[in-house]
Amino acid sequence: MRDALSNIKPEVQGLKAYALRPHSASIKINQNENPWDAPGRIRSETLKRIETRQWSRYPDFVAANLHEELARFAGWSADGVIAGNGSNELIQALLMVTVGPGKRVLICEPTFALYRQITTVLGGEIIAAPVGSDFRFDPGAIRDALRRFKPEVTIICSPNNPTGQVLDDDDLREVLHENSGVVAIDEAYHEFAGHSVVPLLRDHSNLVVLRTFSKAMALAGLRVGYLLAAPALVTEIKKAVLPYNLNVFSQTAAEVALDNFANELRPLVNGIVAERERLFSELEKISGLTPVRSSANFMIVRSVIKPQTVFTELLGHDILVRDVSSYPMLKDYFRVTVGRPEENEKLIVALREIFEAMATSR
Amino acid sequence: MRDALSNIKPEVQGLKAYALRPHSASIKINQNENPWDAPGRIRSETLKRIETRQWSRYPDFVAANLHEELARFAGWSADGVIAGNGSNELIQALLMVTVGPGKRVLICEPTFALYRQITTVLGGEIIAAPVGSDFRFDPGAIRDALRRFKPEVTIICSPNNPTGQVLDDDDLREVLHENSGVVAIDEAYHEFAGHSVVPLLRDHSNLVVLRTFSKAMALAGLRVGYLLAAPALVTEIKKAVLPYNLNVFSQTAAEVALDNFANELRPLVNGIVAERERLFSELEKISGLTPVRSSANFMIVRSVIKPQTVFTELLGHDILVRDVSSYPMLKDYFRVTVGRPEENEKLIVALREIFEAMATSR
Repeated sequence: MRDALSNIKPEVQGLKAYALRPHSASIKINQNENPWDAPGRIRSETLKRIETRQWSRYPDFVAANLHEELARFAGWSADGVIAGNGSNELIQALLMVTVGPGKRVLICEPTFALYRQITTVLGGEIIAAPVGSDFRFDPGAIRDALRRFKPEVTIICSPNNPTGQVLDDDDLREVLHENSGVVAIDEAYHEFAGHSVVPLLRDHSNLVVLRTFSKAMALAGLRVGYLLAAPALVTEIKKAVLPYNLNVFSQTAAEVALDNFANELRPLVNGIVAERERLFSELEKISGLTPVRSSANFMIVRSVIKPQTVFTELLGHDILVRDVSSYPMLKDYFRVTVGRPEENEKLIVALREIFEAMATSR
Repeated sequence: MRDALSNIKPEVQGLKAYALRPHSASIKINQNENPWDAPGRIRSETLKRIETRQWSRYPDFVAANLHEELARFAGWSADGVIAGNGSNELIQALLMVTVGPGKRVLICEPTFALYRQITTVLGGEIIAAPVGSDFRFDPGAIRDALRRFKPEVTIICSPNNPTGQVLDDDDLREVLHENSGVVAIDEAYHEFAGHSVVPLLRDHSNLVVLRTFSKAMALAGLRVGYLLAAPALVTEIKKAVLPYNLNVFSQTAAEVALDNFANELRPLVNGIVAERERLFSELEKISGLTPVRSSANFMIVRSVIKPQTVFTELLGHDILVRDVSSYPMLKDYFRVTVGRPEENEKLIVALREIFEAMATSR
């Protein structure tokens, strides 16, 4: 008898599982989370509402109320919205309805690893257009790849994780016109850039926008994301979204967060953006480090000391950052999330210490 | 320029979205939920624990604590467990790593509609072995289909939704030995049957067991399910499970529910089983209705009045049941979930009234 594992598709067998080493530290700036907890008003109102719900009953088949609130919040129509269990689930649904063997997905690397992972599981082929040497998106490289490979789907993370760069609207328009493939813009970090491509949805039926509650919205623990696109495209993508995908609690928290964005969350976002600029200036002053300007709530930093060593040294200071040196183009880089002011201060002090010690020891 | 929809795979375009008509009624016995809410002790302990968590932080990369509790609860090892956002997500992950164009999935119809839906989205082919005319599983038909089509995956819901029948252990052993495909047993309703195939996991590396917190565990609103299989198979299936798939709140509620199963949930399950038998006896007495014995928390009922009509009449009595007449073999049937005693009583009274009125009007 053949082994049961022989039924696993070879492209899956060849894949390493997406994994994160389990480290912990008091200052956790490795996952681009909001360093502040969900504000008390959002927490208490969510718990209050959840008290009145029956937990034993399925959520509504369509989360109509949340869809309407998301539409209003984003400036789009409710029949062009899907809420999901994190935006990852919606990226997966988009790829499930478009990708299989012989289908191509264009991404701009370095970028979020999951696009490649899901495409590979589905048997599709990844086409990677590198970003420029300054980490800005390279419209020429994207256009060439579109013409040559005619991908069914293009996924661009903007601001890009981990480089922090934003795709210019005019460049996006060119991509949207260049081909009839679906173009998905992952706007996980858009609040920190003060920029969104949602206004382009009206004129582009092949544009998909992905968003999350895990970053600016301070709800990473609750897993909520959403997708915006033309209603006809949404109807097709929904066929791969599992029924009752969003639990009652997270749905409620998302509604409360939307109600309280302006008064409770916007100030946190503004503070993080200000801290990002301060952190950039301070890191720039440290000899041996070159931070890269970012429009997100994180930045990559080039280091003359090996990133793995910096990672370990910072862990010794009770600070957890992300070693991104295995990403294409980033072998000399680590990534830091913008933390709370006192956390950023400790990071700066620790890095100064590490780099001064190394300079002295040479 | 081609339309963006031309990028949607034809098998997806041909698919109807899985949908449920949005009806509501005071007595909701259409979704096989636990008719009792999650017990107060489970609710309050969950809320207490969630108070101390930061909502802005991602859940643990691996829900190690929950995995260990699930392993202990089910009698299996933690490295052979995956917890998910409902068992639907885990069915999808299993199919993603095994199914694509040219791959086959065997199911026994009538059964839960999602197996066919996901297989089709992935470009795979469904092989349907019908159950017997008495709705029992037909081992001969299954064996013939296995030999003829050599499916990569076989999915059997046991107790089966919507027929309530259990696959015999000896018949399952035969299926497991007949072929080297993966055999998944969806045990969503196993608590009501007092039967599980988990003991067979040790000797069968091609067996996968799926379970849910949406039925006996009274947490449908929170979307928790789990998968049990040999660790080597689990490692492969995990590659299609999205990171942070289970939110912090649902994870916590699941842990609390496991801690309190024996004292809080087991008595509810026992009560539902007793009510199922009472409901069966009462429905049997109504002329025009023939209930089918079930090992789950629901049963199908053959009706001389069109199921659509029964559905509408019951809705007039503020009772929501499931019209399953579009399923194969079930054109004369509707399905009722076992409710609370007073709900079952109202159902019986309403059905008596409907069927007596029809008898009189003839």
